[in-house]
Amino acid sequence: MVDIATRVYNHKWKIDPIVRSLIDTDFYKLLMCQSVFRNKPDTQVTFSLINRSTHIPLANLIDEGELREQLDHIRSLSLSRGESTWLRGNTFYGKRQMFRPDFMEWFEGMRLPPYHLERKGDQFELTFEGKWHEVMLWEIPALAVLMELRSRAALGPMGKFELQVLYARAMTRVWEKIEALREVDNLSIADFGTRRRHSYLWQDWCVQAMHEGLGNAFTGTSNCRIAMMRELEAIGTNAHELPMVYAALADDDEELARAPYDVLSDWHDEHDGNLRIILPDTYGTKGFLDHAPDWLAGWTGIRIDSGDPATAAQTAIDWWRARGEDPTTKRVIFSDGLDVEKIKELHAQFAGKAKISFGWGTLLTNDFRGLVPNDALAPFSLVCKAVSANGRPTVKLSDNPNKAMGPADEIARYKRVFGVGEQAAQKVIV
Amino acid sequence: MVDIATRVYNHKWKIDPIVRSLIDTDFYKLLMCQSVFRNKPDTQVTFSLINRSTHIPLANLIDEGELREQLDHIRSLSLSRGESTWLRGNTFYGKRQMFRPDFMEWFEGMRLPPYHLERKGDQFELTFEGKWHEVMLWEIPALAVLMELRSRAALGPMGKFELQVLYARAMTRVWEKIEALREVDNLSIADFGTRRRHSYLWQDWCVQAMHEGLGNAFTGTSNCRIAMMRELEAIGTNAHELPMVYAALADDDEELARAPYDVLSDWHDEHDGNLRIILPDTYGTKGFLDHAPDWLAGWTGIRIDSGDPATAAQTAIDWWRARGEDPTTKRVIFSDGLDVEKIKELHAQFAGKAKISFGWGTLLTNDFRGLVPNDALAPFSLVCKAVSANGRPTVKLSDNPNKAMGPADEIARYKRVFGVGEQAAQKVIV
Repeated sequence: MVDIATRVYNHKWKIDPIVRSLIDTDFYKLLMCQSVFRNKPDTQVTFSLINRSTHIPLANLIDEGELREQLDHIRSLSLSRGESTWLRGNTFYGKRQMFRPDFMEWFEGMRLPPYHLERKGDQFELTFEGKWHEVMLWEIPALAVLMELRSRAALGPMGKFELQVLYARAMTRVWEKIEALREVDNLSIADFGTRRRHSYLWQDWCVQAMHEGLGNAFTGTSNCRIAMMRELEAIGTNAHELPMVYAALADDDEELARAPYDVLSDWHDEHDGNLRIILPDTYGTKGFLDHAPDWLAGWTGIRIDSGDPATAAQTAIDWWRARGEDPTTKRVIFSDGLDVEKIKELHAQFAGKAKISFGWGTLLTNDFRGLVPNDALAPFSLVCKAVSANGRPTVKLSDNPNKAMGPADEIARYKRVFGVGEQAAQKVIV
Repeated sequence: MVDIATRVYNHKWKIDPIVRSLIDTDFYKLLMCQSVFRNKPDTQVTFSLINRSTHIPLANLIDEGELREQLDHIRSLSLSRGESTWLRGNTFYGKRQMFRPDFMEWFEGMRLPPYHLERKGDQFELTFEGKWHEVMLWEIPALAVLMELRSRAALGPMGKFELQVLYARAMTRVWEKIEALREVDNLSIADFGTRRRHSYLWQDWCVQAMHEGLGNAFTGTSNCRIAMMRELEAIGTNAHELPMVYAALADDDEELARAPYDVLSDWHDEHDGNLRIILPDTYGTKGFLDHAPDWLAGWTGIRIDSGDPATAAQTAIDWWRARGEDPTTKRVIFSDGLDVEKIKELHAQFAGKAKISFGWGTLLTNDFRGLVPNDALAPFSLVCKAVSANGRPTVKLSDNPNKAMGPADEIARYKRVFGVGEQAAQKVIV
């Protein structure tokens, strides 16, 4: 039986919305948002979309009007009662009331601020200006909208069965990855694939397949909405935007050198246990650890997000040992450019030396490589970053010069202040 | 929105029926049924299920109670008004009113006769006794029920996503076959896979995928229900049961020798054009053609269903030429043990020498080989045959001694009467 009311209701949709919830976002955005809401509530920040894959002409593939409709739809969203209940009532990392009442009250009334969209050649210029803790919440939905509109552009001309076989092939691929990962003893892996996913429904499928296929080895998803709907753990801690903005706000070189530690000092006051995860690479992992205060060595673990992951992990292990810590009690989370082979390789290399986890992103939730002509669904490197704070440009160096961003003179200054020398370039996959 | 009424209605199902329509059967069964209804209305025939794959212990895999429920459900079916309208109003092979009013009137009132089911070791003995034109209609639903219950037994322990990936893999396999067949110029291929399909829904999917993927090269399906629902051509002509029963009814060797031609004489009176397709192998292709009356050489084509297909096709081509016919105007339909490689090979070998068609069966609608542990979904060789007529045993020789059936002394007699010498054994795939 066709439910006529449902059918008629569906007819009334103006668009098929890509982002349907304010918590269809990464968990760490909410943690960071709360931190900023408390510590830097007056900071003005600009976020900007950057397509690092310049060979993908987004403005030719995606209709500007449709993009505006999707972004306008996101601006119409507010936290639903059930979402608010989940954030207030759930345990995160084993802890209740992770989100404070004053933050929740503000979040319940929050709407995303305006966006600025302009076509520039065959790319879009998409920026968000405003209070840091508001504009930062644009990052994930903006990326998800652009990724999915680009997917839709490639899927548009396909037939019904062709589409079904496309997804059949993609499902088979994900399942084969899961089968390969089943062979890894004591695996601990989470989904970090929200931002560059193929689509919401596809991420949701991948997460559920991981859950069925890997059981307890699958530790959860970074996506709050999916974590809520599927009753899974929400996973994530903090990201580069914190040190980038703190650094941009520094008035002189001395403050700049201290900024990355100030971030973690604020974090230290707010969080403990498994939320105390160092992200050391914003201005070079080696220098960051060398100059780190001793209390940071007491933190629970480290996340490796750029450069050669094995080198970075070994650097961290050596650092812990040098600071009198037992590395085997520490957690090392790999989260950059992972796929099955890399996961198995890193696991084999570091099992026993530290507790190993993986945050698996784009090649979990968007591996459609080779499945359509011209590889029109291959993932690409789209980011949305804080580019300025209170009018000053931000800088990111990371452990891979191909991921560096900011004005050239500022990059040079940061390199000097943080003592970053030659870096080995790594291909940015996604 | 959940449609509550639908949900409640679904709760009321006693079983999930496998066969839901009397025309979920092969088109040629209906053509033959009409022919028998006219020419041999009083013949008493016994059909019997035969599992040629004795290593598959059907009675251990399938619950007898469930099997009875499915068979009982089939006995409750009658022709629906829409199905009757379709049979009466549709064009088949370009012709209207293929089914005569007296036949349709009888068919509209028909219910399938009782079955006899008994467990014998780890196999089932399943037989149908009664008027030929009634019991013959058990063949396809009986096979479909056993095939699908065996599929369900293998699928039962599987998880939700495991199942989805299983079908994803099977879909990908079918689609890759379709992609390979797209490269064959002037292909003409139909679905003949009802009897040993994985399931009804799966056959329906395969047919639709063939339709989308091959366009006009896909000429239709033998399944009447699917042809009706998907607005495709229903395909099929006649089968071995006609000469087998006619032969069993023969009173002496002379009548026996004439029986296969008597069948086609009756057919000749009823049908013309593309329905005049010779099935020559029941008692050996070579002898059948050598002794055939000249009017048979005027028929439209031939169907190759056992033995080495290339040899049989060449035999037919030589025979047409010897009888003064132009083989390039004749149709050769291959329908035995086909898969993509064989189809491409036969097409390459005979294109230009005759009009070539393919009736693709089990390896279209049931190729789950290698997709589950112990290959528990691999197709197997289950048949349901007329084993006696008016108390006399039937015999089939075919061009493959591995497909021969009947009592040994009768097989010897038939071989003598039809002058069948040494035959090359072919592995029976499905």
